[in-house]
Amino acid sequence: MGGIVTASAVSLGLVWEKTPDPVPRWRGNGGHRSIKYADQATMSKAVDEIRKILGQDAVSVDEHDIDEHGYSEWSTSNTDVRPAAIVRPKSTKQVSDVARICSRYRVPIVPYGAGSSVEGNFSSPFSGVCLDLSEMNDIVAFHPDDMDIVVQAGVNWTVMNEEIKGSGLFLPLDPSPTAMVGGMIATNCSGTNAMRYGTMKDYVVNVTVVLADGSIIKTRHRPRKTSAGYNLTGLFVGSEGTLGIITEATLKLAIIPDSFSVATATFPTIKQAAEAAFKMMRHGVPLAALELMDDVQMKVINSSGGAGGRTWEESPTLFLKFSGSETNVKDSLQLAKDIAKSNSCHAFESASTEEQMQSLWSARKQALWANLAVRPEGTQIWSTDVAVPLSRMAELIEISKDNASKLGLYSSVLGHVGDGNFHQMVMYEPDDPQQRNAVSDCVDSMMMRALEMEGTVSGEHGIGLGKKISLYKELGPETIGVMKALKETLDPHWILNPGKVFDN
Amino acid sequence: MGGIVTASAVSLGLVWEKTPDPVPRWRGNGGHRSIKYADQATMSKAVDEIRKILGQDAVSVDEHDIDEHGYSEWSTSNTDVRPAAIVRPKSTKQVSDVARICSRYRVPIVPYGAGSSVEGNFSSPFSGVCLDLSEMNDIVAFHPDDMDIVVQAGVNWTVMNEEIKGSGLFLPLDPSPTAMVGGMIATNCSGTNAMRYGTMKDYVVNVTVVLADGSIIKTRHRPRKTSAGYNLTGLFVGSEGTLGIITEATLKLAIIPDSFSVATATFPTIKQAAEAAFKMMRHGVPLAALELMDDVQMKVINSSGGAGGRTWEESPTLFLKFSGSETNVKDSLQLAKDIAKSNSCHAFESASTEEQMQSLWSARKQALWANLAVRPEGTQIWSTDVAVPLSRMAELIEISKDNASKLGLYSSVLGHVGDGNFHQMVMYEPDDPQQRNAVSDCVDSMMMRALEMEGTVSGEHGIGLGKKISLYKELGPETIGVMKALKETLDPHWILNPGKVFDN
Repeated sequence: MGGIVTASAVSLGLVWEKTPDPVPRWRGNGGHRSIKYADQATMSKAVDEIRKILGQDAVSVDEHDIDEHGYSEWSTSNTDVRPAAIVRPKSTKQVSDVARICSRYRVPIVPYGAGSSVEGNFSSPFSGVCLDLSEMNDIVAFHPDDMDIVVQAGVNWTVMNEEIKGSGLFLPLDPSPTAMVGGMIATNCSGTNAMRYGTMKDYVVNVTVVLADGSIIKTRHRPRKTSAGYNLTGLFVGSEGTLGIITEATLKLAIIPDSFSVATATFPTIKQAAEAAFKMMRHGVPLAALELMDDVQMKVINSSGGAGGRTWEESPTLFLKFSGSETNVKDSLQLAKDIAKSNSCHAFESASTEEQMQSLWSARKQALWANLAVRPEGTQIWSTDVAVPLSRMAELIEISKDNASKLGLYSSVLGHVGDGNFHQMVMYEPDDPQQRNAVSDCVDSMMMRALEMEGTVSGEHGIGLGKKISLYKELGPETIGVMKALKETLDPHWILNPGKVFDN
Repeated sequence: MGGIVTASAVSLGLVWEKTPDPVPRWRGNGGHRSIKYADQATMSKAVDEIRKILGQDAVSVDEHDIDEHGYSEWSTSNTDVRPAAIVRPKSTKQVSDVARICSRYRVPIVPYGAGSSVEGNFSSPFSGVCLDLSEMNDIVAFHPDDMDIVVQAGVNWTVMNEEIKGSGLFLPLDPSPTAMVGGMIATNCSGTNAMRYGTMKDYVVNVTVVLADGSIIKTRHRPRKTSAGYNLTGLFVGSEGTLGIITEATLKLAIIPDSFSVATATFPTIKQAAEAAFKMMRHGVPLAALELMDDVQMKVINSSGGAGGRTWEESPTLFLKFSGSETNVKDSLQLAKDIAKSNSCHAFESASTEEQMQSLWSARKQALWANLAVRPEGTQIWSTDVAVPLSRMAELIEISKDNASKLGLYSSVLGHVGDGNFHQMVMYEPDDPQQRNAVSDCVDSMMMRALEMEGTVSGEHGIGLGKKISLYKELGPETIGVMKALKETLDPHWILNPGKVFDN
């Protein structure tokens, strides 16, 4: 009954000291605090100490390894600085050892999972230690009768779902297939299933976290529901490794539905597609997913070889997923069809076999890859996402498409309509300063319009390096000031993933 | 685009001062900080200043009013101390004025909504100002097309749902019918609908919060989904008024289902009822509610006059609610019946008319009132809730019932089975020290057993005054230390609802 803590701040010699009559810690002016990190020689010394404790194999200074952990071709927010070393811990205790050493020497720690984030979330602008958690990939405990699972941060969600599928349970998120649980939590990821199942935050029962000084806390036991004390779990979810390093988590699981189906509905305009989508939602059609792809995205699919072995009509298209009992699925499909048809849909197609389902959904599934496949050599894709109140989404998509084409940029749109969240993927030549500026303007103006519509600059990718200025515009100095005050409290030397979310 | 802040910490003269090289603020030993609040004369001075700014009518020192705000007959966690005054603000600005004055004079502020909490969440152990938010009861904006609503903290949820029902939308929580949005958020409330719809935290898009020094922040715009910056919204939800005073919120709304039905299933034992319930869940039966009442609770219903105009069998009974399209409801009902019947259910009854539905559900609805109605004069009811992993619930209920009866106490049980969350209501004579000790032991041992089962000491009532020691046992000194550090950061003088959740 002595609580659920596995290591002690006392034993680590870091007990809180009282400050005399403290004053509020939120800044009214977004002012900066000067932080001094270790120089290269001191970082090497810290790395040597880590090597002594974790062993030779846990530490890599291989140039290729370092490059791979310091740069992402998925992201437009990279930095030239590289980590001093890659450290691969095998346990929460080892992560704690690393934090303790890095804290002493003021060495930044950047947690790394699958490297699938897109906003520079794992880049190392101040060098330091890149903590690759991929070897912490154990399923610690699976409790089918409690409908939950305890996993280490490096567990890949598709592997996990495969492992437990015999139980009829699954984690219903749908981010990058490569993503790992730790990163999914740190980014509060989601994907196409969010409309029905919610986002990552809705599935995290507890997290085990290593704090900046090496203390280890567990935020919660394993109840599915609680009102006991502050929601620390929720604070760490989406904090992008800036408040603590997530090493383990208990996740709620959902029931794999009996039956699935998939349909596509084609519309003359984005507006009509979105209107039909919202009518389906307001009618309470129990959809498992409600996705939108624009004419350009459909064209990209065709150019890349036509997913599902067919040529698609190059018009705005809704991709619908249904799940539940067989009767429910049939009912819902009919209702969705009726609504689509009475809202300018000129082609509604539904799957009746597993094969047809795969074929119809493949276009949605391959969207991102198709964009990468068709881009001319030397071009890059700037992929970004925003979310706005539901009723404003179609308008913002149309403005953003217009804006991109005015700037001479090729862009496609893909929307999670049920959440008012969409992605614009803009193609550009990174070596052409004019194109680079144009794409930057395009993304910025989309974010600013999202804010004017009371939206957010990131629906599911996080802030990372790339969206700090926009986040500041979204929330203003006081709200950001409160976030910074919390950061300062938990990480007084700003060693945890510095330079992300906001500047010190 | 200047952010969403409505008042400035700068303008309030409270800009963050840097501390030299701060050290971590979590305590390793749960140690205490000495806090000195204003004496009675200084409190009166503060109240006078508040009166000057908010007007005569906004401030009450009427003894009856003060008593009503300082004591709850629903709660066993009361204190003899009373607030110095009741203040009824009409706007966020006025709340900010109150906080600024109270902060200057170190006067505690205790937010008060409907007074329906049960753990002493609104009592005033250090006196101070009780901030009654019931006059801030405006629906600020209703956005049916975005499926959200902006309300002040004093809005009652049943009134709000009635107001907007024409839109086909509703807030699907189900706490006390008297509850107000501010308190619902502060307690992270839920109720019988949580299994299907989740808890309050799942419906809060943003909150406007007055911080201890009077600064006003808004945590978020209005996107239904976001990964932008820390989840401050989630931190304020469930913080019981100890981190800030919630004055306004944007809430997600859900679709009112087309069709409903209700059924009851009677079982020989709690264990069999729970087993049938879990089988329904694992089969993916789309239940809207899944409630359990024990034999004693059914007896209480009969003694109080028999809800629904009938006499109920005094055996463990599941109360099931179904919602969706008509076909879905019919299907789900049949599936639930089959599962119940093949799991020792000897009586399954379902409603086919609206009237039968009301009648069947009335027993569940009247449970709490029935307990109050049948108790002998002079006795009180200690109502408490815990939550455990699903598979442990039946066992814990049986142990807790046994334990109560061994201690000679009359107790009934009511469970939200779908969440592993249940309430035990124990009757006792408060003036009999032996009975008082017995009930206290009974509740304590239920909480300790819940912790041994990896559960929580509060599923939906919060911690308040009543469960501080248990929370400490649940989470341990380091996790509590992190919570305290966050508290200290946002409320350095501990003036916000002091003495709740944990001690300073």
